[in-house]
Order: sequence, then C-alpha cells, then structure tokens
Amino acid sequence: MFNQVTIIGFGHIGSSIAKALRYNELCKRIVAADASPSVCEKVVEIGLVDEVYNDLAKAVQGSELVILCIPVGAMGIVTEHIAPALEEGAILTDVGSVKMSVIDTVTPFLPDGVDFVPAHPLAGTENSGPESGIFNLFEKRWCLLTPTPETSIKAVEHVTKLWEGMGARIDIMSPKHHDLVLGLTSHLPHLIAYTIVDTANSLEDDLKGEVIKYSASGFRGFTRIAASDPTMWRDVFLNNREAMLEVLQHFAEDLTVMQKAIRKGDGDYLFDVFSRTRAIRREVIELGEAGVPAPGLEDDRG
Amino acid sequence: MFNQVTIIGFGHIGSSIAKALRYNELCKRIVAADASPSVCEKVVEIGLVDEVYNDLAKAVQGSELVILCIPVGAMGIVTEHIAPALEEGAILTDVGSVKMSVIDTVTPFLPDGVDFVPAHPLAGTENSGPESGIFNLFEKRWCLLTPTPETSIKAVEHVTKLWEGMGARIDIMSPKHHDLVLGLTSHLPHLIAYTIVDTANSLEDDLKGEVIKYSASGFRGFTRIAASDPTMWRDVFLNNREAMLEVLQHFAEDLTVMQKAIRKGDGDYLFDVFSRTRAIRREVIELGEAGVPAPGLEDDRG
Repeated sequence: MFNQVTIIGFGHIGSSIAKALRYNELCKRIVAADASPSVCEKVVEIGLVDEVYNDLAKAVQGSELVILCIPVGAMGIVTEHIAPALEEGAILTDVGSVKMSVIDTVTPFLPDGVDFVPAHPLAGTENSGPESGIFNLFEKRWCLLTPTPETSIKAVEHVTKLWEGMGARIDIMSPKHHDLVLGLTSHLPHLIAYTIVDTANSLEDDLKGEVIKYSASGFRGFTRIAASDPTMWRDVFLNNREAMLEVLQHFAEDLTVMQKAIRKGDGDYLFDVFSRTRAIRREVIELGEAGVPAPGLEDDRG
Repeated sequence: MFNQVTIIGFGHIGSSIAKALRYNELCKRIVAADASPSVCEKVVEIGLVDEVYNDLAKAVQGSELVILCIPVGAMGIVTEHIAPALEEGAILTDVGSVKMSVIDTVTPFLPDGVDFVPAHPLAGTENSGPESGIFNLFEKRWCLLTPTPETSIKAVEHVTKLWEGMGARIDIMSPKHHDLVLGLTSHLPHLIAYTIVDTANSLEDDLKGEVIKYSASGFRGFTRIAASDPTMWRDVFLNNREAMLEVLQHFAEDLTVMQKAIRKGDGDYLFDVFSRTRAIRREVIELGEAGVPAPGLEDDRG
C-alpha cells in the first residue's frame, strides 16, 4: 500500500501502529523517529522498524505517509520542524485525541503539495512507551477522521485504507463535533477518574491504604484510567478547553442534583436515574461495544 | 459445617451464595426464600436449592444460619417478620453494602439467643436476578465483618469460616469505619458513574447515539457500573447518607480545582495530579487487586 511510512513518536500508539503495519503488511519500509534518544535506543533494541532517527526531519525524507503519534501540544512545533523535509505529494496524519487545536496548530506549517488528514483512533491502554505496542490494538476499533476543507479526497481515502488495513472502522465528522463527542465520551470520564483517584490520594495514609486494599469494589476501574499518560492527557485538557468546560459544567450540575437527592432522602429520584442509566448500558451492549474484547488486557471490573 | 442454611432474597448475591455453598459443600440443606412469587418459581426451575418458600418466616425454621441478601432498606422489616421464627442459637447475617444503618434497623428486632453478624462481601457484577449467580464470585474477594458489641465471638468465627469456605478473605472493622471506606471506594464511584451516564442520557438523541457508539474510549466502563441494580443502590445512598455527603463534598471541591486549572490553562497542576494518580495505580497493582480476574465477566476497559 505504501513504500515507506514514518511514525513520529514511538510511544504506545506509535509502537502499536508499527506492529499493526508489519502484521498486516501495509508497507515496505517503516521509519521511526523520536525526540528522546533513549526511546530511539529502545526501538533499535526491539528491532521492529527498518530505521530509527532521533532527527525528526531526517526521518520523513522519502516517506509517502507521516504519522504524528505525539502529544497534542507538540503537533504544531513538530510539524514546523519537519515541514521543509516532507516529500511533495506526501500525506501527513496524526492520532491526537483533540482535533480543532491540532488542525489550528498544524495547518499554518503545512507545505504546498502535502495533505493533512487529521485522525483519531479510539484505542489505547493505560500503558506507555515503545515496548507497550499491541499488534491488534486497532481491530474493530473506531478511527475518526476530521478532514479540513483543504484535505483532498484522495488523501482521506489513503488514510481510510491504512486504518481499515489495521482492522479499524472509519467514521468521518467535523473537528468541532469530534471534540464535543470525545469530550463527553472520553475526556470527561478521564478527568473524573483522575479527580476521584486524587481525592483518595489526599486522604490520610491509613484510609488511603484501605481504599487501595478494597479497591475491587468500584474504585479499581478508575485507577486504571487514571494511570494514563500524564503528558498526553494534560495536553488533551488544555487543548479541548472549551468543550471540556461545557461538559464539566453539565456534569457538575447533575452531580449537585444527585447530592441534593441524597441529602433530602429522595429515593424516587435516585431510583428513576438508576433505571434510566441501566437502559443506556443495554444500548451499549446491543451496539456490540461492550463485548469487544480489548487485546492483551486484564479484566478490570470493580 | 451447617446442617441447614436459609438464604433470604435470591438475587445476584443470594444465588451466588447458593452456588458457592453447594460447590464447596458447606452445608447439607439450602433453603431459599424470596418475597417475589415469580423469583420463587424461577428458583424451583433452576433446581439449585432444597426448598423454596415465598413465606420468609417459614423459610428460617430449623436453620442454624440465615443470610439476608436483600436491599439495605428492607433489612429491618424482614428481620421483624422472621424474628419470631428464628431458632434459638441461630446466627443471622447479611450482605448489605452499608453497615451502620443495617445494624440500627436489624438489632431492635433481634430475639434473645440469636446472634447478628453484619457482613459485606466485596463482590458482585452489574447483573441481577436468581439466574445471575456465579459459583466462584467470592473467590479471593474480601468479606468485611463489622460485629457489634453484642455479637458473640463464636458467631463471628462461624461466619468467618463460611466466607473462607467460599474462598473469600476476611477483615474485621467497625461499622462506622466500614461505611466511610466503602463510601469512598465503592459508593462514590457508583454515584459518579450513574451521574455521568445520566448526563449523557440527557443529551439530544443524535449526540447521545454517538456517545454510545464511541463509548469504548472511556465512557463504557462507567455504563457497566451504572447498570447495577437500582433498588440496591438507591438504598445504599439513602442509608449511607452522612458518609456519602462527606466524600461527595470532598470530590466536588477537587473537581472544581481541576475545572479551574483547565480554565486557566494550568498545565503544571494537571501534570502533577496525573502523575500522582499513576502512582496509586501502581499500588493497586502491587496489592494484587488489579490482576485478580473476576469470574465469567467481559473485559470492560475503555
């Protein structure tokens, strides 16, 4: 499908893409690049790719496809750095969890003749680093594409084939809509998990020890989410600020109503809410989302 | 170990106990009782127990051990109803998720010569009903006992042996401490999951459909928790009101600080929190909680 693909940033997603490209034989050569020399050394050790560069600009030379697998906050500066070295006709794509700010920061540095296809695969575990890649991480997972008015249809088709080749399902939507939907379905759950685990962290040591000891009763699932990469998630919240503040406001209001129902002993209200939420679970299961096993992962139910 | 055990309330926990008693050969006869005639019919159909009664008082006759597997809000009235039929020397125990209010409502009806051992097994799935029992649900799970000053040591020992016989690990603590620790580690996570899923439920249909469609990105794990039994959880929140309001207050404050950090673009603060919470995950994993596979359950990671 491609002669040479460059993966910039060899963390959890970057290394999973490398493995998926190999496994599905989607390109002849894979070039990896990472700003961290120790990551580059590790990649050489793993021996998964054809070439590894610490110099990001060198790594994109000769590649038809360049995939940015770096934190959202680094997309602009990295694009500025590699732009002069991008091949005419190359496609640039990314895997960032926020799309509006990535488009805003990448687009100004995009050379003529290079297409940018903003993308977001809805996959990943709480693990990080070059050794955490999983070859079938994207199988049956969604990958959302949010092309800009400047993105060519041909480039969108190429990136679609790439992700479908790794087993993913493709949906296309506007960047703004993406950021709101993901704000609700991904970013808010992560922020809440981080918050509740930090709430536990601020307890006296004895109580904190017990919360950890008995974590299987509900808390444990939150600790998994709250173990996600700090840099990646800091950048997500900083770069999806508007949507986050909107959904947070909504959630905080709903939580206050719950709190009031508990204070007033309003059992009917609580029962109604808990019955409604059960119906949502049924829809999730019917859509097949609940049953799709994530590869290589522990069961983490409370 | 026991000649006859009565299980009152044949839902998820009640039916799991019946299966675990059988599997581990912990008693000769199991008597089941449920206030719902249709549940009783179902129990007869399943054929798991020796006798089934719709009349709860009849069901406790001749039993050395009676286990209340009913919502916390029903513990008092059921104890009042069965009290005259309890055998002299029998042990009454329960599986409620709140301990102070259960002790307060059960104790006044307790006949002389009957011991009450408040207990709470930290196990369960979001499934309900007489057919949802799992024979090894309690294996490697904690069961917390919160004896009162009136509970005899012998009764505590009997109930300890029962739960250890089903594979559980026992810890003993005060009812008040139990309610605070579980408020944090179980009740707060459940309330938050119910709230965020209801927040999604209140969206316009299109957006709601997409949140469900892309739920694997974080939301999905919350929908599982928010599918738990509405009656059980209504009663938990109503009966652990004080501890819930305390932990909710704490959580709401922490969430407001997070919100402010996002609004102000304070990346350093967010990064610090996300690094601290990662450390908690390590402690959870080290304690072995994260790796214990829950029996018969889907992987539900986001």
